[in-house]
Amino acid sequence: MPNTFGHIFRITTFGESHGGAVGVTIDGCPSGYKLDLERIQNWLDRRRPGQSKIASPRKELDQVEILSGQEDGITLGTPLTLIVRNKDAKQGHYDDINKVFRPSHADFTTQQKFGMRSKSGGGRASARETIGRVAAAAVAEQILEVLIPGFSCVAYVDSVKDIKSQITLEQLATLEKADVEKHILRCPASPNRDAMEKIILDAQKAGDTVGGTIKCAINNVPAGLGDPVFDKIEADLAKAIMSLPACKGFEIGSGFSSTSMFGSEHNDEFIKKGSKIATKTNRSGGVQGGITNGQMIYFNCAFKPVSTIFKEQATVTTGGEEIRMKPKAGRHDPCVLPRAVPMVEAMSILVVADHYFRQLVFDHGRMPSH
Amino acid sequence: MPNTFGHIFRITTFGESHGGAVGVTIDGCPSGYKLDLERIQNWLDRRRPGQSKIASPRKELDQVEILSGQEDGITLGTPLTLIVRNKDAKQGHYDDINKVFRPSHADFTTQQKFGMRSKSGGGRASARETIGRVAAAAVAEQILEVLIPGFSCVAYVDSVKDIKSQITLEQLATLEKADVEKHILRCPASPNRDAMEKIILDAQKAGDTVGGTIKCAINNVPAGLGDPVFDKIEADLAKAIMSLPACKGFEIGSGFSSTSMFGSEHNDEFIKKGSKIATKTNRSGGVQGGITNGQMIYFNCAFKPVSTIFKEQATVTTGGEEIRMKPKAGRHDPCVLPRAVPMVEAMSILVVADHYFRQLVFDHGRMPSH
Amino acid sequence: MPNTFGHIFRITTFGESHGGAVGVTIDGCPSGYKLDLERIQNWLDRRRPGQSKIASPRKELDQVEILSGQEDGITLGTPLTLIVRNKDAKQGHYDDINKVFRPSHADFTTQQKFGMRSKSGGGRASARETIGRVAAAAVAEQILEVLIPGFSCVAYVDSVKDIKSQITLEQLATLEKADVEKHILRCPASPNRDAMEKIILDAQKAGDTVGGTIKCAINNVPAGLGDPVFDKIEADLAKAIMSLPACKGFEIGSGFSSTSMFGSEHNDEFIKKGSKIATKTNRSGGVQGGITNGQMIYFNCAFKPVSTIFKEQATVTTGGEEIRMKPKAGRHDPCVLPRAVPMVEAMSILVVADHYFRQLVFDHGRMPSH
Amino acid sequence: MPNTFGHIFRITTFGESHGGAVGVTIDGCPSGYKLDLERIQNWLDRRRPGQSKIASPRKELDQVEILSGQEDGITLGTPLTLIVRNKDAKQGHYDDINKVFRPSHADFTTQQKFGMRSKSGGGRASARETIGRVAAAAVAEQILEVLIPGFSCVAYVDSVKDIKSQITLEQLATLEKADVEKHILRCPASPNRDAMEKIILDAQKAGDTVGGTIKCAINNVPAGLGDPVFDKIEADLAKAIMSLPACKGFEIGSGFSSTSMFGSEHNDEFIKKGSKIATKTNRSGGVQGGITNGQMIYFNCAFKPVSTIFKEQATVTTGGEEIRMKPKAGRHDPCVLPRAVPMVEAMSILVVADHYFRQLVFDHGRMPSH
Repeated sequence: MPNTFGHIFRITTFGESHGGAVGVTIDGCPSGYKLDLERIQNWLDRRRPGQSKIASPRKELDQVEILSGQEDGITLGTPLTLIVRNKDAKQGHYDDINKVFRPSHADFTTQQKFGMRSKSGGGRASARETIGRVAAAAVAEQILEVLIPGFSCVAYVDSVKDIKSQITLEQLATLEKADVEKHILRCPASPNRDAMEKIILDAQKAGDTVGGTIKCAINNVPAGLGDPVFDKIEADLAKAIMSLPACKGFEIGSGFSSTSMFGSEHNDEFIKKGSKIATKTNRSGGVQGGITNGQMIYFNCAFKPVSTIFKEQATVTTGGEEIRMKPKAGRHDPCVLPRAVPMVEAMSILVVADHYFRQLVFDHGRMPSH
Repeated sequence: MPNTFGHIFRITTFGESHGGAVGVTIDGCPSGYKLDLERIQNWLDRRRPGQSKIASPRKELDQVEILSGQEDGITLGTPLTLIVRNKDAKQGHYDDINKVFRPSHADFTTQQKFGMRSKSGGGRASARETIGRVAAAAVAEQILEVLIPGFSCVAYVDSVKDIKSQITLEQLATLEKADVEKHILRCPASPNRDAMEKIILDAQKAGDTVGGTIKCAINNVPAGLGDPVFDKIEADLAKAIMSLPACKGFEIGSGFSSTSMFGSEHNDEFIKKGSKIATKTNRSGGVQGGITNGQMIYFNCAFKPVSTIFKEQATVTTGGEEIRMKPKAGRHDPCVLPRAVPMVEAMSILVVADHYFRQLVFDHGRMPSH
Repeated sequence: MPNTFGHIFRITTFGESHGGAVGVTIDGCPSGYKLDLERIQNWLDRRRPGQSKIASPRKELDQVEILSGQEDGITLGTPLTLIVRNKDAKQGHYDDINKVFRPSHADFTTQQKFGMRSKSGGGRASARETIGRVAAAAVAEQILEVLIPGFSCVAYVDSVKDIKSQITLEQLATLEKADVEKHILRCPASPNRDAMEKIILDAQKAGDTVGGTIKCAINNVPAGLGDPVFDKIEADLAKAIMSLPACKGFEIGSGFSSTSMFGSEHNDEFIKKGSKIATKTNRSGGVQGGITNGQMIYFNCAFKPVSTIFKEQATVTTGGEEIRMKPKAGRHDPCVLPRAVPMVEAMSILVVADHYFRQLVFDHGRMPSH
Repeated sequence: MPNTFGHIFRITTFGESHGGAVGVTIDGCPSGYKLDLERIQNWLDRRRPGQSKIASPRKELDQVEILSGQEDGITLGTPLTLIVRNKDAKQGHYDDINKVFRPSHADFTTQQKFGMRSKSGGGRASARETIGRVAAAAVAEQILEVLIPGFSCVAYVDSVKDIKSQITLEQLATLEKADVEKHILRCPASPNRDAMEKIILDAQKAGDTVGGTIKCAINNVPAGLGDPVFDKIEADLAKAIMSLPACKGFEIGSGFSSTSMFGSEHNDEFIKKGSKIATKTNRSGGVQGGITNGQMIYFNCAFKPVSTIFKEQATVTTGGEEIRMKPKAGRHDPCVLPRAVPMVEAMSILVVADHYFRQLVFDHGRMPSH
């Protein structure tokens, strides 16, 4: 189970950062959908390092190949396996880091869990592991767009270190992917965007790193998805997002700020919009009691500053000796946020896809009305 | 799957707020453990409404009965089913709320999901559903205390509306359950505690409600629990906590505040403590790359103000008519926080228990060393 | 997972033969169905010992109670828990058998698995455990009858020891439950039925036991259920039936006899029946490549003679001493077959129900045609 | 779930017979084991068609590649993905069979399930799908041999059509793989082996096919594996074996023949063998109450005659027209039995591996004794 996510639209990812390939198998992908391979590749390109001066210069082509589950580009309803070959693995490049536990990396904990770890880097504890997730979401997105008119999922970098984009909830509601993709920061036009970019470049120059937050909106999800108990939509989103590398916090709708309001300020009153029931406000974030209410789903999440810094730090060797270390400058991001945007979207899409297909059983299995 | 949580230590809860009983089946409970029934009952009493003037006056005895899985108080390794009869269900009491969709309740979304809903209240969308979770955790806690020397899990109310307890991380590290249980607010002694209590009582008088945050610490969890990809400990904790009614946000360790720091400020340097490897600081919250590192696990979570208020609000009837509603004063909490404390602890314990048993396979299944 | 069966219509059973209660939780039961409690009780009465002179005289009322998941007899779409209290547990009655490992019972293996076992009998290794399965199937049957016009599942005792009923496949195709229920043997009228009954009574007099086979037909299951790889319908049926106590063999359609035929004799040619595609013969047993083809599903299964006999046998004590034992005459069946009939039907219904609901995702999730 | 097998040692297979590749991901493979790639390849060669005059002449190299989960041949504890490229796919070769539903093939049922099917052959309903299973078992076997001293699993062809090998249970107990592999029939030396081979060659000449039975023995499995309720070892073996293409029946131990015995004849008396408890006879087949007892596990299973024959048969076209068809002679087995031997072993090994790792939780999670 550890490498599987979802119940009906269910993905299993595999691959270490420096093995033969990374990839994903989607079990439960429905039949008959025409896949646009270029769009899948485009998702992987957005995730890929080396896209700009503020991201890691590691050059990976990340060329996707579909091994199974389709014929002439049409899904067969059978498992879809997509892989990306690892091409940039440098033997020996990671030699020095095999002898120490890097601070706030997974080196020490991986050793504790498995009794060993990959000689050549982080193994599964690598942003490269997310390739499988992103590829699966690229498939899911194409299917959801057919099944859900107007479906979209857009995330953007809302803050870097202490500087906030000041994008409002109203702006978020009409945000399009193109608005986000225009700028290397993956932040739409905002008075603070230059300052956000500058703080990253300054950190990079100083051999340091910064974190920030990402906001995400999912639009036109039908009411009724999610479960009232453990598998609440917001709980599954929280798990999905918190399972991304470096993520430290998640909040749905009003989130932590809800605690400053009275109930009478926070409640979303119901209104009619034409023949449909909607809410006047949307502090709930599109979810009530774990189930979608048809309003925009939105959430916010925090990514810590990247652990790999080019400053001297204290640590302990695998042999148990206290030392001071300073990595040679290598290929690492000063800020993970721009590349995390497609990862956040990917995990959101996977949660919606799984719950969409789960709900088919409730919708079509219930007592037929007369 | 929707009513099941965990993979190896796996619970399935059942029961509506006003049916015959609520309860839980634990599948995967190991054999040979002596259960202290009084401690289980005590957990349920902590969760129960009507404990104090700041909680709902609904009087439920919540008497637990174990139907299976034990003999003379010793677990058999077979499924343990615990139930609590519903005694306080008043026919007709909820008649008025069946005709409207209460703002920010699950009435509308439940109707959308199931095509119907329980006549007598929230069905599964009720805090009463958490009885099964708490009972299961009360069992898990007793087992973990045998398997993990010094295991403890303590939560407390860290803020109510805008007022923070000002308990520090250092205080949290040595906090004991008794410190929390002394006061009806489930907040340890703090200069602000009276103000926190007052704001609840004021809200109650005004027919309004308030939210707040809960902090939780889990101590002495061994290093190596959790998985590097989807089932990261912090991801499973996030899901567990966000699946509690009214929870809107979750953050592990430094959480959202991590985004204000440079990597060089945030990293936890490794040090030796005797023969063991520890970290000098603990911004990671006891987890690195999804796997525990042996340090204290701690997190923070947000609960919104309770949706049931005794003020007039706009809403829509089940028939689709816009109206204004004001509930008759009934049995509801002005603030869910004190009762949420044992729920937060319960879900945390269930996550640790499941990962503890999962790790047995990794520990004892790996290549034996020579 | 060990006590859970099914994926979408998913049951978890609990309870030892001599604890407080046995029962089942159904997760994934759809909403809106009117349950006939009397029919559920009737299923349990068919399963119950003490129905006739050829079955165990243990008198259990097996009164079912529904704890959750319904309101006014209508399913809510939430987990349905049904329990039956254990009333006939006699303290001390099993004292002698706690000191020896009874031949071909689960005493020794239970001890090996759990490191202990229930003092008072077989624990989960008891026919009483099947109460939960039968209760769940009684619910599933009522739902399938609504969703699948003409759905039926009928099993009967086809042989006892070496005596076969000589019921033909053609007779099976039109067999009704009433035909089976008329006689205590649960075998429809047949020239050999008296001889089958006599061999049981003779075995009983001799303190011995006999086994036999059960045939089962499931009618009007739509084409398309089941999966092409692991979850073939016949594989899931095999697991379901082989998980019943004392079952030693399973064969679908032509089964073992298929190995005596040439391919040209065995193949089922396709024909038109009106506008529908059917098969001329049905050696496949209603399943091709793991997926139903719309023809009658039928299978055969073997139950060994009951292990509890009243003759002296060699065995070993829990202390490791070789002894000879002869149980005091007690409450045990000379032949489990008649009571196994509802169990076989129950497991078959549960398999069909689960695959029916699984198929909803394939049917309604696939690319909509234009 | 449909393409996943197992719970802890858990495999997901993928790939159509004529897509880019077939393969498997093993999730839950423990760390630190040295894999012998040549042995994995050897398993695939045994499964491969074209090995002899009595098997299909389709020439597939079936070269295995490990994409992930290992480094320098040592397992990392992360998902192991193994693939085999499809090389022999001939475009157009299957054109004619796309217009008819071949008798007793999965063409019709696949169409019913997915609303479509692969243009180029059976899709997942192909013996080629078993490559993933066999590759996974080749890994599992190497691990079990380290963990279980003396572990072995050997199957052989016990009958073809009506001709039985007359190998006894005593011979089975000491059978070695080399004895089976010596002959293209995968039947150890036996007076009837020539006759068995002849009946296949005769059928082949006649454009016809034959079936038969396979027996399998699993040795030195420790007592205590398996579960008392649904996941009985014999139930999981039944599912595993019945999920193989063309399998129609399964029986454990005495199987169907148990129904001819009295309980007093069938029971396995316990005896001491040195300090260990064993059974004098082994009619149980190494399993009692669903749990292994430490004796040899053995079972028997039936494979029907292959559906593809080169004789004229009636059928229906995809357009719904009744026609007569006779396939052009192509690459198909006159008898699947010899190639099914490694498949039967593979599924058996996967069941044992999963239950072995499941039992670690029971063994190491139970109350520590003092």
